[in-house]
Amino acid sequence: MAPGDLPLVLDRTSEVGLTKQLARQLRAAIAQGQLEPRQRMPSTRALASALGIGRNIAFEAYEDLLAEGYLVGKDRSGTFVAQELSPQVLDLRATRPAPKPTARWLQRQVPEPQVEDAIARDQVEFRVGQTDTSTLGHSEWRRVWREVAESDLPTDYEAPAGDSLLREAVAEYLKRARGFVCSPDDVIITSGAVQGVNLIAQAVLAPGDQVGFEEPGYRLARQILQESGAQILPLPVDKDGLQLSALPSGAGAPVMVYTTPSHQFPLGVRLSIPRRLALLEWARQHDVLILEDDYDSEFRYGASPLPSLASLDTSGHVVYLGTFSKVLSPAVRVGYVVAPGALRDRLLRIKSKADFHTSWPVQRALALMITQGHLERHIRRMRKTYALKRATVNLALQPIRPYARLMGLDAGLHAHLELNPDVSAQQVIEEALRQGVIVPALAPYYLGLPDRNGLLLGYGGLTVPEIQRSAGVLCAAIAQAAGETRAP
Amino acid sequence: MAPGDLPLVLDRTSEVGLTKQLARQLRAAIAQGQLEPRQRMPSTRALASALGIGRNIAFEAYEDLLAEGYLVGKDRSGTFVAQELSPQVLDLRATRPAPKPTARWLQRQVPEPQVEDAIARDQVEFRVGQTDTSTLGHSEWRRVWREVAESDLPTDYEAPAGDSLLREAVAEYLKRARGFVCSPDDVIITSGAVQGVNLIAQAVLAPGDQVGFEEPGYRLARQILQESGAQILPLPVDKDGLQLSALPSGAGAPVMVYTTPSHQFPLGVRLSIPRRLALLEWARQHDVLILEDDYDSEFRYGASPLPSLASLDTSGHVVYLGTFSKVLSPAVRVGYVVAPGALRDRLLRIKSKADFHTSWPVQRALALMITQGHLERHIRRMRKTYALKRATVNLALQPIRPYARLMGLDAGLHAHLELNPDVSAQQVIEEALRQGVIVPALAPYYLGLPDRNGLLLGYGGLTVPEIQRSAGVLCAAIAQAAGETRAP
Repeated sequence: MAPGDLPLVLDRTSEVGLTKQLARQLRAAIAQGQLEPRQRMPSTRALASALGIGRNIAFEAYEDLLAEGYLVGKDRSGTFVAQELSPQVLDLRATRPAPKPTARWLQRQVPEPQVEDAIARDQVEFRVGQTDTSTLGHSEWRRVWREVAESDLPTDYEAPAGDSLLREAVAEYLKRARGFVCSPDDVIITSGAVQGVNLIAQAVLAPGDQVGFEEPGYRLARQILQESGAQILPLPVDKDGLQLSALPSGAGAPVMVYTTPSHQFPLGVRLSIPRRLALLEWARQHDVLILEDDYDSEFRYGASPLPSLASLDTSGHVVYLGTFSKVLSPAVRVGYVVAPGALRDRLLRIKSKADFHTSWPVQRALALMITQGHLERHIRRMRKTYALKRATVNLALQPIRPYARLMGLDAGLHAHLELNPDVSAQQVIEEALRQGVIVPALAPYYLGLPDRNGLLLGYGGLTVPEIQRSAGVLCAAIAQAAGETRAP
Repeated sequence: MAPGDLPLVLDRTSEVGLTKQLARQLRAAIAQGQLEPRQRMPSTRALASALGIGRNIAFEAYEDLLAEGYLVGKDRSGTFVAQELSPQVLDLRATRPAPKPTARWLQRQVPEPQVEDAIARDQVEFRVGQTDTSTLGHSEWRRVWREVAESDLPTDYEAPAGDSLLREAVAEYLKRARGFVCSPDDVIITSGAVQGVNLIAQAVLAPGDQVGFEEPGYRLARQILQESGAQILPLPVDKDGLQLSALPSGAGAPVMVYTTPSHQFPLGVRLSIPRRLALLEWARQHDVLILEDDYDSEFRYGASPLPSLASLDTSGHVVYLGTFSKVLSPAVRVGYVVAPGALRDRLLRIKSKADFHTSWPVQRALALMITQGHLERHIRRMRKTYALKRATVNLALQPIRPYARLMGLDAGLHAHLELNPDVSAQQVIEEALRQGVIVPALAPYYLGLPDRNGLLLGYGGLTVPEIQRSAGVLCAAIAQAAGETRAP
């Protein structure tokens, strides 16, 4: 390290002498590891020159540190940081100073995000939202990234709406995969669907606005809307999806409704066609924005696809949210929004202030994944993989049919296991946990009191043997909670 | 396309007959391009079966569309979408329905982001913030991405704080490059520095809070703080940086101060050491959070580096912002925050709700860039490249010394050209633009009335010949504005 790169600052106006200041700062640099053990120190001449001090000051400071064991002299080869530092010195390493908890700038309340805790080791978890990337075509994936690495890296910011190749690819993909026609100009690439919800909340909501929200529903989206000032109006869900009878009419209509019509999160049901049409008509009549979160519509098993609300919309009342989290991996953090024109402009302004645009190399890689057909081939392979996992869940849970019903298996990567009212979900969860199987409860997905007793089974990220073993554990736990003495 | 993938929804309760509904929806599908020219239509039998209608209904709808020219029959080979559609039909393609501008959910005001406009073609622009990626080691860059593509893509969300490899690499990098010691746990990876400012604003500011801000200063950051409810207290800047005499003491002290001490944006000056120490002491005494934006400290020409405020902080009052935008490219959209513990937890909670975490493949690629030494090699190469560009700017603008002074050339990728009070910046800008050279004015970087008359010269993204040519244009424009008749 050149002498000028050392964090040494001498204050000539201080009452503390320069030698003492220099020695103190050198000790701190050694303690904090800016100067590393066995590193050669600059000569006293070079240091004095860099700091604009007399050489005798540097010499005296070195003498002090040599005496204290911070530095060692190696004959004529120079002065070095000591190889072994005392534990007290080492404890100081890399410990940043801490402010008082009462600091004025620490007074804002920032609620914890409502997400699942991290996965524990050595346990199997029916974690919702996990995907399986094992069948990702590795040669295709590598080829895509090779192409990205060979493209010139832009020297400037890109457009907030996203890479034009990716926006074109997404528009084409939505037409092919969802029968949803829009132009690349309608598409905004986001840093994941969570950012999409956040941008929409900021663009639309004012404090006190009512927002209709599926009950139970996707907690993180609900929390983002609430923290933007929205009053949540819970909308119950039955086997045909969101219940429209709960929608207020007249002046009491909310300004926005959040819904997951393809595979209701977390119950897994689909919004029926008559309800889709009626919801759109109600939105048109009451001037309500429908936020359609189409998070996992790509995975359907047997059931024919239903058209998205956005594709049925004739009056510009739907904003559509898509994501690559389920079809590829949540870790890529890329999603997209298709918004009516006037809303789109607002979303772009907010996006510019949120992160300017989504990372370009990842956008370009996804564009190539789509245009070269890799993504849809991956989805077709994954449909088969997930269909097998789904069938395994279904079969393995047959024995507990008397106590529980599996729902939401038509689509997506998770199912909902509704328990009989007399079977305690909490007891099942605790017993399964003792056997190393983590199962999320349905209850936390409610804003109010749950109207169902259930568990969520995210099977997307588990292997077939893991599903078999952990479903066995779950069966035994349910049977036990139901008061049976023998495992079914 | 399978019949079930077509966006056809028949409403049996409607007063409109099924044939008419089907024909209308098929027309729309053709007009919007869900059914493409020359595409084969499903057989009437398959369509009827998919929709659960009598075959005669499908047959009659096809007959109507054949008569209207939407469809054509090709002997016995089937029915196809017509090859040429009328212009009226094609106009309907991909036009999403538009809401009324008076919609209830379009009533929020969303200000335009205060950023430079997009680059115009065929013009040279002294654009601030552009980098030069031409000397990026392509074989190194490709090797990094090959390694990323060969790593298993995570199947789940990663930690909001970022990839642990990248956080370690950033902590090591800060120690080596800035003499700033922190642990990987102190580092939060952000989706660019803009997101860092946004997270800090959300974590710290309540409406009405005072924030000290350099005047002139970085507009987008100032805007983000203002839109978070902050009252901006402009702090004038002189040749030694932020003027401390403008800082209120006692109860009038702001809750936060934003500063760019390494290379003040946009004036280019450095905060002197005595002011650094005094600013920290004032912050400690008044319990003020210092937001240190160290956006381009990597590029120094001749001048010895000064320690960052964060490395001098002994009381936990500094939050440090870094970015890969200047050392690599703004398009990667990755930055980092080093925050005191209690603030860090708040930032992570907000980050989870903003985009969960920054895209993993890009994070991993940057981690490899650092740990394999590529980034620092690139920075060393770029220092030489930028030093040559800087020298070219300096030399090429010699002729207008009587009318203007170049400032801020010690560091960074842009300079500030201060004009004599009697030379109109606006006149210079307009004359340069006529010659195809775009030069940003200093004035818009002020919140209040400018105390200087100047231009900004972002030279990082220009080639040496571009700098020579456009500096010549600028010299002539300045001489002309200064009332000279001959070009200097």
